[in-house]
Amino acid sequence: MPLPRLQLNSDSSEPMYLQLCAGLVTAIENGTLAAGMRLPAERDYAETLGVSRTTVASAYRELVDRGLLRPHVGRGTFVCAVPEAEQAPFAWRGKISTRVQRVANPALRHLITRGNDPRLISFAAGFPAIDLFPTKEFRRLTDHVLARSASAIARLAPTEGQPGLRAAIAAHFKVRLEQVMIVSGATEGLSLIAACLIDKGDAVIMDRPGYVGAIQIFRAAGADLHGWDIRNADPGELEDLIIRYRPKFIQINPTFQNPTGHTLPERDRRSLLGLAARYRVPVIENDSYRDGYFEREPPKSLYQLDGGRLVLYLSTFSKVLGPGLRLGWIIANEYMIDQLALVKERTNLFTESLGQLVMTEFIRSGAYDRHAELVRKEHGRRCDAFFESMHRHLRSQISLAPKPSGGIYAWGRLPGGYKSADLLDRAINAGVAFGTGEIFYPDESGSEQLRFCFANLLPEQIEEGVKRLTKCFMGQQTTRPVAGKKLPLV
Amino acid sequence: MPLPRLQLNSDSSEPMYLQLCAGLVTAIENGTLAAGMRLPAERDYAETLGVSRTTVASAYRELVDRGLLRPHVGRGTFVCAVPEAEQAPFAWRGKISTRVQRVANPALRHLITRGNDPRLISFAAGFPAIDLFPTKEFRRLTDHVLARSASAIARLAPTEGQPGLRAAIAAHFKVRLEQVMIVSGATEGLSLIAACLIDKGDAVIMDRPGYVGAIQIFRAAGADLHGWDIRNADPGELEDLIIRYRPKFIQINPTFQNPTGHTLPERDRRSLLGLAARYRVPVIENDSYRDGYFEREPPKSLYQLDGGRLVLYLSTFSKVLGPGLRLGWIIANEYMIDQLALVKERTNLFTESLGQLVMTEFIRSGAYDRHAELVRKEHGRRCDAFFESMHRHLRSQISLAPKPSGGIYAWGRLPGGYKSADLLDRAINAGVAFGTGEIFYPDESGSEQLRFCFANLLPEQIEEGVKRLTKCFMGQQTTRPVAGKKLPLV
Repeated sequence: MPLPRLQLNSDSSEPMYLQLCAGLVTAIENGTLAAGMRLPAERDYAETLGVSRTTVASAYRELVDRGLLRPHVGRGTFVCAVPEAEQAPFAWRGKISTRVQRVANPALRHLITRGNDPRLISFAAGFPAIDLFPTKEFRRLTDHVLARSASAIARLAPTEGQPGLRAAIAAHFKVRLEQVMIVSGATEGLSLIAACLIDKGDAVIMDRPGYVGAIQIFRAAGADLHGWDIRNADPGELEDLIIRYRPKFIQINPTFQNPTGHTLPERDRRSLLGLAARYRVPVIENDSYRDGYFEREPPKSLYQLDGGRLVLYLSTFSKVLGPGLRLGWIIANEYMIDQLALVKERTNLFTESLGQLVMTEFIRSGAYDRHAELVRKEHGRRCDAFFESMHRHLRSQISLAPKPSGGIYAWGRLPGGYKSADLLDRAINAGVAFGTGEIFYPDESGSEQLRFCFANLLPEQIEEGVKRLTKCFMGQQTTRPVAGKKLPLV
Repeated sequence: MPLPRLQLNSDSSEPMYLQLCAGLVTAIENGTLAAGMRLPAERDYAETLGVSRTTVASAYRELVDRGLLRPHVGRGTFVCAVPEAEQAPFAWRGKISTRVQRVANPALRHLITRGNDPRLISFAAGFPAIDLFPTKEFRRLTDHVLARSASAIARLAPTEGQPGLRAAIAAHFKVRLEQVMIVSGATEGLSLIAACLIDKGDAVIMDRPGYVGAIQIFRAAGADLHGWDIRNADPGELEDLIIRYRPKFIQINPTFQNPTGHTLPERDRRSLLGLAARYRVPVIENDSYRDGYFEREPPKSLYQLDGGRLVLYLSTFSKVLGPGLRLGWIIANEYMIDQLALVKERTNLFTESLGQLVMTEFIRSGAYDRHAELVRKEHGRRCDAFFESMHRHLRSQISLAPKPSGGIYAWGRLPGGYKSADLLDRAINAGVAFGTGEIFYPDESGSEQLRFCFANLLPEQIEEGVKRLTKCFMGQQTTRPVAGKKLPLV
């Protein structure tokens, strides 16, 4: 090996090991030492250079730290890279935390992007009838708030939320104001709860299939996820999971569930709460869809049935008014609200004020209830239109789960062996999108399933979307005989 | 020890160990087994009961899991608690993550609370002249946005931010739109950066004293913090810190710094960047106060001097318009924007839309620049008023750091041995508040120092606040001879 001939000066004010470093860097830069070459053993090199072994060891360690050398146990130290010129872009990639490496899954982003792509008729992202957004009322109330207290929207505000909005929600749920915290959407709620409760390696039980955001948030926090089949709702299965995994908590969306549309009957709710009480496992209830029932109010929430002891309640205005407002709330005991506020303070200090002040007026004036009533009816109509279109065009190709009694989702299954991700590729080319099933499973099964959000499309758009989807199957018929085949029930 | 007399039934469908559990729980509940009692050794108890040792071991383990028993190695298994009745509130405390335990410091909340307490003249929280908030213009632009595109504020929006606002910021900083990300305030920016870059145990170098929020956010993410004296700005000290701790990054607020008001001269900026480049350490530049110069523009940002290679830039509208808007931005290369967006997606999906759309119009119409100009002049006047009042009333009691040339803070020091936390107790009673020094130190020194935000008080309020503070020292004079004493320079 061509050793670089270095002159080290023991009279210099620069330490010997840094002089050696500089010499080695030059040798690496000019190619005398090429990537992959092995450096001499510390002892040998020290002898050659007439310096102490410590000097050589320090220099090697320094260059290992700078990323230029790499030690291989028992094999020696190797040149591993050419140093980047100071002009070169910095390799940020090497700095990324393991936490972020755990979440490098773009499923959520794809849903959002497809929900906003004007070329697509999108059943993908989950949002309500935005076309019904109460523009006039919202504009009036916003102006009212700004006229009355414009500078209030610029001031610091409490991390727990604007007192008026907390009070309005507290009154609706018959809890104290101190038990309510405003969050920037249910996603922030889940994220604060995860930060507050999950330590790396903690087990979490959640509904299966379940909300993709919850899966990704809990996983990012370091949780091991275990799914409980929400539609079977077998207490035996739940007890087995609790005993086996000793979960930090159970997370569930029991009403008009995302993604299946399923609603847990009161009997199932009570047995879930019984198990939670027996094993002292807290329950996170994501109840984001409650206000979106079509005809009859859903069963009492877990929070209500449990009296708020073991259950932490989470909801949002996104599924009635629209996700752009980023306003949701948590109901919990004051101790937990305090802990969640400590985390939120370090996440974004507090939720912006104008939206909260307007929403307070929106609730107080009765406009929220009126709008929810309107949305409920229209979502019911759109749900009917979707099931009717699907039955007419695709009953042999996609088997749908029972029609939900509220919410914004329908859940379906493709015939055996046909993957929804493959269908989605064809569908996007045909100008229509949906959610693929596997993103809703913590164990990445569900590849034959699919989720449709019917709430934000007019009946004629729904019909057109379903027709476009039909075309994807036509092309398939020659190779995959799916049409006309009797399909398994979902 | 009175062993509970249990009848276990091997013909029952309930496993033997669960029967034993139930019996032990009853015994604990009725006091037969009191907290602190030792249970018999597994082998002995199995013999007594005529069951296998496994049954006893399983029952003990189950009750350890339920929190009723606690094993002590070599000493046996003890009753550690009375089981709570199902009606009792759940002990959420035991579920809190270690991450949250790391951040149980209310310093930030105290600053906010004191900033909003109407009984106080508060120099505590850091915000600009809210009384100048451009109410009329903001109301007009909000109405304009709602009239033009009300439903846009309800829709899903990109995690990276509204394209219009990104474009406006990109144009100002002469970068591409893809390099800009909108965040819900600088606090969210720091929090996303921390989640993206910090692994537990990573070293981070930051300015000392420095922003309390940064200290708490980095610490919550698991970083070990090492302070670099921002006012000395000694490159030798920085190089020592880099070599000793190999930091993941350096975070610094180089312009009108929080809390000292200090601005790093261009020479110091260049030596900092030289070291960062030599050791390949990225730099997070928090530049939240740049637009708040009083007369002359501050030196070029680190981002500008470095050409955006090693520097990630963060700023906010909070220090010109007010913190209630929760709008800030990050400028970085596209790879980092992607990573940060992945984290933000799991934090709150995206920042609410109305504020972004209004801010876009606010910038485009020139109203932002006009307002910044107004705020700059007024902040300069209030800074003069503050220094003048302090000189008149408290020059012997509080030694102030040099008057800043922008921003919203003044930094001071009390005579030796007098703690600012003690002064604050008296001050709050007297109706005035400030920030205590130690919260701005990662090593909790600085207890004799204090931070004043002068920007949100009218000159007459400043004078009154300083007078109230003077009273706190009067009471002290008999026991602590601080007045008239020559004080060390800060």
